[in-house]
Amino acid sequence: MKLALCQMMVGMDPEENLKKALKMVETAAGEGCDMAVLPEMFNCPYSNRYFRSYAQPEDGPAARAMAEAAEKHGIYLVGGSIPELSEGKVYNTSFSFDRQGRRIGKHRKVHLFDIHITGGIRFMESETLTAGDSLTVFDTEFGKVGVGICYDIRFAEWSRLMALAGARLIVLPAAFNMTTGPAHWDLSIRARALDNQVFFAAASPARDENGVYQAYGNSCVADPWGRFVAHTDEKEGIVYADLDLTQTEKVREELPILKHRRTDLYELKLR
Amino acid sequence: MKLALCQMMVGMDPEENLKKALKMVETAAGEGCDMAVLPEMFNCPYSNRYFRSYAQPEDGPAARAMAEAAEKHGIYLVGGSIPELSEGKVYNTSFSFDRQGRRIGKHRKVHLFDIHITGGIRFMESETLTAGDSLTVFDTEFGKVGVGICYDIRFAEWSRLMALAGARLIVLPAAFNMTTGPAHWDLSIRARALDNQVFFAAASPARDENGVYQAYGNSCVADPWGRFVAHTDEKEGIVYADLDLTQTEKVREELPILKHRRTDLYELKLR
Repeated sequence: MKLALCQMMVGMDPEENLKKALKMVETAAGEGCDMAVLPEMFNCPYSNRYFRSYAQPEDGPAARAMAEAAEKHGIYLVGGSIPELSEGKVYNTSFSFDRQGRRIGKHRKVHLFDIHITGGIRFMESETLTAGDSLTVFDTEFGKVGVGICYDIRFAEWSRLMALAGARLIVLPAAFNMTTGPAHWDLSIRARALDNQVFFAAASPARDENGVYQAYGNSCVADPWGRFVAHTDEKEGIVYADLDLTQTEKVREELPILKHRRTDLYELKLR
Repeated sequence: MKLALCQMMVGMDPEENLKKALKMVETAAGEGCDMAVLPEMFNCPYSNRYFRSYAQPEDGPAARAMAEAAEKHGIYLVGGSIPELSEGKVYNTSFSFDRQGRRIGKHRKVHLFDIHITGGIRFMESETLTAGDSLTVFDTEFGKVGVGICYDIRFAEWSRLMALAGARLIVLPAAFNMTTGPAHWDLSIRARALDNQVFFAAASPARDENGVYQAYGNSCVADPWGRFVAHTDEKEGIVYADLDLTQTEKVREELPILKHRRTDLYELKLR
């Protein structure tokens, strides 16, 4: 599977953002990619001030344009996330499409990011957003793919549940900040890959020093042994990675962590 | 809490090993430490060939000597691990003692290490050892302390369960090898600390280039933000760390990961 993480600079204009995203998807398809991934809130500044006014329904212009692009280029598209408006509520939602442009995944961020560091960042997503309640895993010819969004990575249970549901690759549109990014981004991505013996790919917006939110960037892919196989810096660009998803089976055979779980002693399950 | 990780060189003679371990505990106590930690299989070469012949009952000479040392020096002692013989079975067991020499913890390694890397290490603990079946957390005046052994760290569920049981510090006697050590030791320790917002302290034997098993060494302590606050190399010696276990509360207040777990959607529990 040839994968592209589109680390785009997100601006104030939702149409310009969408246009840029689709352009990057086209470029990735031109490079022969099987799947392209957009970052979290790729069409909207990452701020509680904007989520509601930028929100669109699940069949709004952004979702329709992504479906069309996936079909036109014959590429899987994990559409980062956008603010989704549904029955008066706003969700942080990632829509995924197959090569025929059919929607095969809809993940609403399950864990909302509320942080308040003394002398550092304060951000309360829960002031404007509503949390989702579903695990998202879809099929491809390369194997199953799970989708989480940003803060979802913090919860070892969630990635584990995706792996137990069969995911060989977990994709995470995300927008870590400049406090947690340097401290935890690389560590969390490698750890989730290693613990679950999956590929783990995280796509961030590029860092906009003058924007309303400075994303950490550093989009990357870790393999089932916990090694980075692709990693960029904070600048705009596409990260490419050639992945053999059957490596998950090889690693799981040599060091059978998932098999060694003591399910006779403890249980992790969806309610 | 002043903590000492005794990264000792483990030899072939069980009495010499015990003597050296107690000497290091004495040194740590002399430095004013509140707790000393010995490495995994500190009295026995780490090899299936030796576990059974070196095994002792829970009230054998090693356990008795450790209890005496804890009382004599008024120090908490997490006694690494030894091969424990019980009803004909051999366990990889860690005994912990309080400042009065009372046994306050007995952890039998729950996850047995079986690995077979193509062209690399092959080690099958399950050929000689029997697995334990209990979560181990004990009280101190600094807060609750959890104990795991080596491969137990691989299972995010296990550390999470210790944290949910109230552990502010997780102690891990361990003996990673030269394949998994460079690849996963630092990563796993930092990740468990960060994900559970606990201190995580891992004590390894020193590396013996000519021994039957080459341990990775690198005993260390990570804090609840996922940073190393103490870290050594492969050589014999004591690693000291001054820990304020109330930092766990501060970190959990600023970034309330444990509180944000979606326990309405998923459940992790002991059976």
